[in-house]
Amino acid sequence: MRQSTLFTKTRREAPKDEVSKNAQLLIRAGFVHKDMAGVYSFLPLGLRVIEKIKTIIRDEMNGIGGQELSLASLQDSQVWKKTDRWDDVKVDNWFKTKLANDTEVGLGFTHEEPLTLLMKDHIASFRDLPKYVYQFQTKFRNEKRAKSGIMRGREFLMKDLYSFSKDEHEHGEFYDKCKDAYMRIFDKVGIGHLTYITFASGGTFAKFSHEFQMVTDAGEDTIYIDEEKGIALNEEVNNQEVHAIVGVNPDKFKTAKAVEVGNIFTLSTKFSEPLELNFTDESGKNNPVFMGSYGIGVPRLMGAIVEALSDDKGIVWPKSVAPFDVHLVLVNGSDETNARAESIYKKLVEQKTKTGQNIEVIFDDRDARAGEKFGDSDLIGIPTRVVISDKNKQGADGEYLVEVKDRATGEVQDMTVDELVEKLKTNV
Amino acid sequence: MRQSTLFTKTRREAPKDEVSKNAQLLIRAGFVHKDMAGVYSFLPLGLRVIEKIKTIIRDEMNGIGGQELSLASLQDSQVWKKTDRWDDVKVDNWFKTKLANDTEVGLGFTHEEPLTLLMKDHIASFRDLPKYVYQFQTKFRNEKRAKSGIMRGREFLMKDLYSFSKDEHEHGEFYDKCKDAYMRIFDKVGIGHLTYITFASGGTFAKFSHEFQMVTDAGEDTIYIDEEKGIALNEEVNNQEVHAIVGVNPDKFKTAKAVEVGNIFTLSTKFSEPLELNFTDESGKNNPVFMGSYGIGVPRLMGAIVEALSDDKGIVWPKSVAPFDVHLVLVNGSDETNARAESIYKKLVEQKTKTGQNIEVIFDDRDARAGEKFGDSDLIGIPTRVVISDKNKQGADGEYLVEVKDRATGEVQDMTVDELVEKLKTNV
Repeated sequence: MRQSTLFTKTRREAPKDEVSKNAQLLIRAGFVHKDMAGVYSFLPLGLRVIEKIKTIIRDEMNGIGGQELSLASLQDSQVWKKTDRWDDVKVDNWFKTKLANDTEVGLGFTHEEPLTLLMKDHIASFRDLPKYVYQFQTKFRNEKRAKSGIMRGREFLMKDLYSFSKDEHEHGEFYDKCKDAYMRIFDKVGIGHLTYITFASGGTFAKFSHEFQMVTDAGEDTIYIDEEKGIALNEEVNNQEVHAIVGVNPDKFKTAKAVEVGNIFTLSTKFSEPLELNFTDESGKNNPVFMGSYGIGVPRLMGAIVEALSDDKGIVWPKSVAPFDVHLVLVNGSDETNARAESIYKKLVEQKTKTGQNIEVIFDDRDARAGEKFGDSDLIGIPTRVVISDKNKQGADGEYLVEVKDRATGEVQDMTVDELVEKLKTNV
Repeated sequence: MRQSTLFTKTRREAPKDEVSKNAQLLIRAGFVHKDMAGVYSFLPLGLRVIEKIKTIIRDEMNGIGGQELSLASLQDSQVWKKTDRWDDVKVDNWFKTKLANDTEVGLGFTHEEPLTLLMKDHIASFRDLPKYVYQFQTKFRNEKRAKSGIMRGREFLMKDLYSFSKDEHEHGEFYDKCKDAYMRIFDKVGIGHLTYITFASGGTFAKFSHEFQMVTDAGEDTIYIDEEKGIALNEEVNNQEVHAIVGVNPDKFKTAKAVEVGNIFTLSTKFSEPLELNFTDESGKNNPVFMGSYGIGVPRLMGAIVEALSDDKGIVWPKSVAPFDVHLVLVNGSDETNARAESIYKKLVEQKTKTGQNIEVIFDDRDARAGEKFGDSDLIGIPTRVVISDKNKQGADGEYLVEVKDRATGEVQDMTVDELVEKLKTNV
């Protein structure tokens, strides 16, 4: 797209009350807008990143058998009373509101209850199991403090998957598959090297749950990493008993601040029993369904990427989630230079990558100074920048080259337009 | 996908409290789940329809220059007090809730206010105008009655576009473009022939607004149609003065029940003035931005399609929004027949249409009686049904033919697999 038509502008300063690096950068670069503390809107550039992250997650969830649906936000109190999660003393982050007839309803902070109830229409026999169901849906959580930018919103998009299995064994197989899928997701979005599978307390029904913790100074949690094993423990399970079970030596721990970018839980029959989600097994006996839940906060992941990969000039998007593949920057010059930029833009948008995607180009065709354009480009953080200016060198045959800069490494190369096309097609 | 893996099941009866035809059929066929009155969840089949409708709308909105974003649901009362829309007497369908610190916040029933405020960061000069911004976002409306199924939800996905122009003339040009885009959308989703541009009251700032009304017995509105001109008036403007302005003869009116599937409003400076969204014009003068808003309720449109096009056997999806292109139904028979169905399934899912989309196949490979499968297939309403059974005829060269039935017309044809592939590729 032409940057001259994009409605958002970059800004020098983030709002004064914004203390998190991720939101500061994302607001300055025009990716998000802060409506209130912990409430953010996603502008076109930000929405493109969200959609790319969703696509990566969706592919992995479909790959392990997930079926996508979309549950409602408004929650019937009667259902949550059955699992004892309606009381504000038991769950302290509900948003509640009232229907016109004065009936109190909640705004879903998670969806175990309504989905368990819904599945009663569709699960009756062992033949109906296992089933894996997920959604990308807005959660509302009445956070006391909301100081982590888009990493802890009062409303935020979450991918939540729920598994329905016959027994603990069938559940365990899926749980492990999902663990692997989660690590692939974090690899694909560019933070795999910073992210550890972290043992956490499993609650009443399981020894452990697992968090996926990304190491960052902006983290709200502390984790204890065994680098050799590539795993970590969180605060609540960092004790002798667990060290022995997991087989780690606390003397070798590296302590780090980290942010949770995903978590997976064994729920067992915690929800299926009170809500009576049962199935008839092969012998005709009635059993409660064995459940699990698996969450990734999408804006939290986006914020974590910004925290981990930005530098002092701005954001550095990994290619997989960048809002555009290439930032074509025209330094306005001679008529010939300007026309050359136009024709390169037209050529690039017609290309497809080797995997069939369109090459996505943002073309800075604005009437602005070169310094402003370069500053904005660094701030916005598209992986590849291509500069067209009067100063472009000429190749051996007299053809003008383009200047290609890698946002992450800062490496600069002059190349022909055909070489650029080939580079973008193969995404290297 | 294999229907044996789909977690939803069809059901004979809709919930007793569900009085609308659209929700009855959609619940029975496994497209939606009713959580409470006016609160529906979208199951995998339903979500596929929603996504197809969104794609059609998105293409048209991008085509007239729209830029997509996603605004927050939680609303700051201070902003709405400035436009005098916070008071529950003035706006009677708010859902309101409270932050942990007791501050009252609302759940957006529309988004003029927060977007107008947001645009102050991005609009300063005539050079920044016009701009067109839209989203697909959940609206919360505390409806007194919710008896129209998914056509009137207490929470629902809405496409809302907002236009920001220099003056009434520039606004008018876009308004007309959007009117045309809306009619293309209704044509594409299969209800164009039933939908009328309908004059409605414009409120304080404009003579008229426009509704897009689809004729149906399930409609909540009455419209007065001039068939010759292809336009209609709604109740509130059906008077002598308007007949003269619009140039219609009320003697020729056809009266019909109808449901509003879209609406467009001239807002003028109703929001930009109190929220001080101004721009500097060419002469250096400061002016309020001239605005418009343009809405389509996505589940409402889905419900309207069901109301308009279903028959006594079930839903009849238009090809453009059907959850799958083809319903491959195996009537379990000889090993050879069953193997033939498998190989046809594998062949079909590998095909692409001439416009590059995958052919989407749902394969009824369930261990169930033929009658149940045919009944479910009619209820679910995929446009093309292909039956594989022991009874399939053989062509001249001995090759088994497949039986192809058109869901809308009931027409049945025997054809070779290659002919079927060709038919699906060209989508005829």
